[in-house]
Amino acid sequence: MAGNSYPEFIEFEKECQNAQFAAGILAWDQETKMPPGGAMERANQMATMAKWYHDYYTSDRMRVYLEELRRPDVFDALGPEEQTNVRETGWQYDREVAIPGSLVKEIAKHTSMSLETWKDARAKDDFSLFAPSLEKMIDLKVQVAEHIGYEDNIYDALIDEYEPGTRTKDVEVVFADLRERLVPIVKKILDSDVHPNEGILAQPWPLEKQKEFGIMVVTDIGYDWSRGRLDEAAHPFTSGAIDDVRITTRYNENDIRPALFANIHEAGHAMYQQGLDPEHYATPMGDAIGLGFHESQSRMWENLVGRSMPFWRHYYPKLQATFPGQVGNVSIEDFYAAANLVKPSLIRVEADEVTYNMHILIRFEVELAMMNGKVGVDEIPALWNEKYKSYLGIDVPSDADGCMQDIHWSMGIQGYFPTYTFGNLISVQLWNTMIKDIPDVWEQIEAGRFEPLLGWLNEKVHRPGRMYRTPDMLEHLTGEPMNADHWIGYIKEKFGPIYGVQL
Amino acid sequence: MAGNSYPEFIEFEKECQNAQFAAGILAWDQETKMPPGGAMERANQMATMAKWYHDYYTSDRMRVYLEELRRPDVFDALGPEEQTNVRETGWQYDREVAIPGSLVKEIAKHTSMSLETWKDARAKDDFSLFAPSLEKMIDLKVQVAEHIGYEDNIYDALIDEYEPGTRTKDVEVVFADLRERLVPIVKKILDSDVHPNEGILAQPWPLEKQKEFGIMVVTDIGYDWSRGRLDEAAHPFTSGAIDDVRITTRYNENDIRPALFANIHEAGHAMYQQGLDPEHYATPMGDAIGLGFHESQSRMWENLVGRSMPFWRHYYPKLQATFPGQVGNVSIEDFYAAANLVKPSLIRVEADEVTYNMHILIRFEVELAMMNGKVGVDEIPALWNEKYKSYLGIDVPSDADGCMQDIHWSMGIQGYFPTYTFGNLISVQLWNTMIKDIPDVWEQIEAGRFEPLLGWLNEKVHRPGRMYRTPDMLEHLTGEPMNADHWIGYIKEKFGPIYGVQL
Repeated sequence: MAGNSYPEFIEFEKECQNAQFAAGILAWDQETKMPPGGAMERANQMATMAKWYHDYYTSDRMRVYLEELRRPDVFDALGPEEQTNVRETGWQYDREVAIPGSLVKEIAKHTSMSLETWKDARAKDDFSLFAPSLEKMIDLKVQVAEHIGYEDNIYDALIDEYEPGTRTKDVEVVFADLRERLVPIVKKILDSDVHPNEGILAQPWPLEKQKEFGIMVVTDIGYDWSRGRLDEAAHPFTSGAIDDVRITTRYNENDIRPALFANIHEAGHAMYQQGLDPEHYATPMGDAIGLGFHESQSRMWENLVGRSMPFWRHYYPKLQATFPGQVGNVSIEDFYAAANLVKPSLIRVEADEVTYNMHILIRFEVELAMMNGKVGVDEIPALWNEKYKSYLGIDVPSDADGCMQDIHWSMGIQGYFPTYTFGNLISVQLWNTMIKDIPDVWEQIEAGRFEPLLGWLNEKVHRPGRMYRTPDMLEHLTGEPMNADHWIGYIKEKFGPIYGVQL
Repeated sequence: MAGNSYPEFIEFEKECQNAQFAAGILAWDQETKMPPGGAMERANQMATMAKWYHDYYTSDRMRVYLEELRRPDVFDALGPEEQTNVRETGWQYDREVAIPGSLVKEIAKHTSMSLETWKDARAKDDFSLFAPSLEKMIDLKVQVAEHIGYEDNIYDALIDEYEPGTRTKDVEVVFADLRERLVPIVKKILDSDVHPNEGILAQPWPLEKQKEFGIMVVTDIGYDWSRGRLDEAAHPFTSGAIDDVRITTRYNENDIRPALFANIHEAGHAMYQQGLDPEHYATPMGDAIGLGFHESQSRMWENLVGRSMPFWRHYYPKLQATFPGQVGNVSIEDFYAAANLVKPSLIRVEADEVTYNMHILIRFEVELAMMNGKVGVDEIPALWNEKYKSYLGIDVPSDADGCMQDIHWSMGIQGYFPTYTFGNLISVQLWNTMIKDIPDVWEQIEAGRFEPLLGWLNEKVHRPGRMYRTPDMLEHLTGEPMNADHWIGYIKEKFGPIYGVQL
């Protein structure tokens, strides 16, 4: 590799990512520490950081590096890790330069406005107030997609931002299959005579004890506090990479679920970030592969591990000792059933493990129609409500709790929603591969030993960074493309017994 | 002003300052929130931020703006606030471009090394380990000064960074006068028969109550929590401007002074930053004038207000109610004397109000000799010790607690020390002007009303930003250049009665 500009290129790439990490700290600060008065100028600071990053990343310097390093004779002589860094940086560069600065600026400006409009329209439960703003956002995102280019479907160009290498037509097949198999499962569960007692979880729990318990679990499963911290935030999130990965949570005095499951969820994200290869800090080789894989980690720890019977066989005695008044006289079976309650709801973020994907399928279908001009903006509420009725049997009483419940469309991040379901599907697909390597993983978990699982994820999923793209990574790890089989199988096997039905 | 590039210039200037504010948040985070593992990469992030700032600030774009706006015909047509922004930005620009990039880089590199060497040498109490590193730093700072240029004394170019417009020869006159008058005052105080009981302050105080009390005082004097927050830090500091100004403190379970006086000190800095003109956010007109004026604000609140009898006539009953076991039976006179104890010490940061300036005078004299090649590096410890003996009557038992006690020289911020004494002198000089406008200020303070004082400072000192430079600002506000008369008069008037001597 002597004689090429790779060493300079990668130093420059790291410099750009350092600025991104700095912006990440500012964003974390904004959600957790910033005094209220700081909001307006913080927005300006963030805008400057974003602008400078864009200036550097799309500079002539980067262009010249990439032109050289992507020349086949040069590229082929690079090692696989170097090739990954060139490929992924080039991909990001191409996206950044494809969109004209004037369009970037217009989107940024419209997004601020659109967010306010959405908040207002939602508060007033009046979709017609939001519609013009959404229409303009769709138009802008169409322009973005046209600049970036796509093969089959305009949606490809959008989803590619969050899950590089993913094609809409593949997603459509998997999601259609998932929907077809999930609808009857939900119906059977709801028709069953078993009704877990949600009141076990939704009762007063002393906050300090909740915190203690949550921190104990997160520590046990392997979150590294020397490279992290826990704070409270209105909307929990994880922030940072490798050596400084912070989690946030929101406690609820009347519901222990946030402390139990949101903590584990964020720790799952965080252990991915902490598990990236420090040798490749601030380069694609030291970065997460995409949002779907990220969500697979959070959901694996939250759902497959954290809502499993072996997990609770380990922790339930501790929970009872910590909260004798709340669960001292509740059987582990009743607690487990409550923790896995299936209850179709209007609101995505409150959904249980089984129905969650239905919320995403609906959004994906609406979004796809929206971006392909197959549904007029004014028709979105009706389409939304029809799908909630048909897939989940739910009447949507208001657009505020219907198609305006999520912030995503007002932010212009069309293409993001599917990655939540990718996370669910990938989590089980990975699990079924992992268990071949660690056949006694459930015994380990029941004994409170999480290192074998985390070690496997570190080695197989985290350390490779972005060496593969999501579809290839899945093939590489599991021998199969993303599909619904594993997740559906898992749901049947887990929820059949809980609800006493054959799924 | 139509037709010139001022509007674009000032937008660009703000953009650069936004990045500086962002870096400020990172620095705050590093001292208060960052997990230990994050240190190394944070250093890289900060380095990138500094580099990018330098790149933008010294870019052709800035050069072209300044070339136009500093042309006399264009400059003269600007309003006074615009002229200030052009003048001060130009001054900063000239400094930044004067120093070759290679020298900046060499200093940055040497500073990291020098800091480690200093820590090590100090821990081992072996100046000879630090000497080569200090020698190199002096050489580098000489180069910096030569690039920047100066009129009379090489030290001018260094002090100018912290107190723009200040000349060494003026400082020498004021400091010599101060020393001459202060040495006999210290001697008389030490020879007096009065010995305040330090034990009143240095005893166990419950931490939670300390925090409560400190927060109450800081709130009362006018620190705006909607634009700030309080955290703990090993070395207390204030960070941010106008809409997000954070203070830090360090509590000591066995000494209430940090909670009482360090909190007020930092709030004094913070109220300056919060009092800057929001209309001029991120420009010189919305920035503090210099370190001396900054220190005048912190010390005015800490010493002139916070260690005064009227202040304690207001707060002492509250202190007694909060800490009945500690001061329930202590008279206000004894408490006041203890809070104003004069006790020469080896360590600058532990010095009392009277002897503090002596520590600075010594540093200034040594620094001046050092930068002018009038003392060899190896002779510094002897020179230091000789001055401590002669000015404060103290034997210096070790270089660790002698000339290696402060971090400054290892960081290459020669020229910074004098600003601490500027702060003391300016604080009283301002006070004696203020009291003509608010003759009943002491009655106000005794009644717990601090708005008149803060309002005066806001209007006279904070809002003008950098309209004037320090020497002109002092003339403008007080009608006099910086001098020791006011401070010496204040010390005599305050400490004579406490120590029962005629000073």
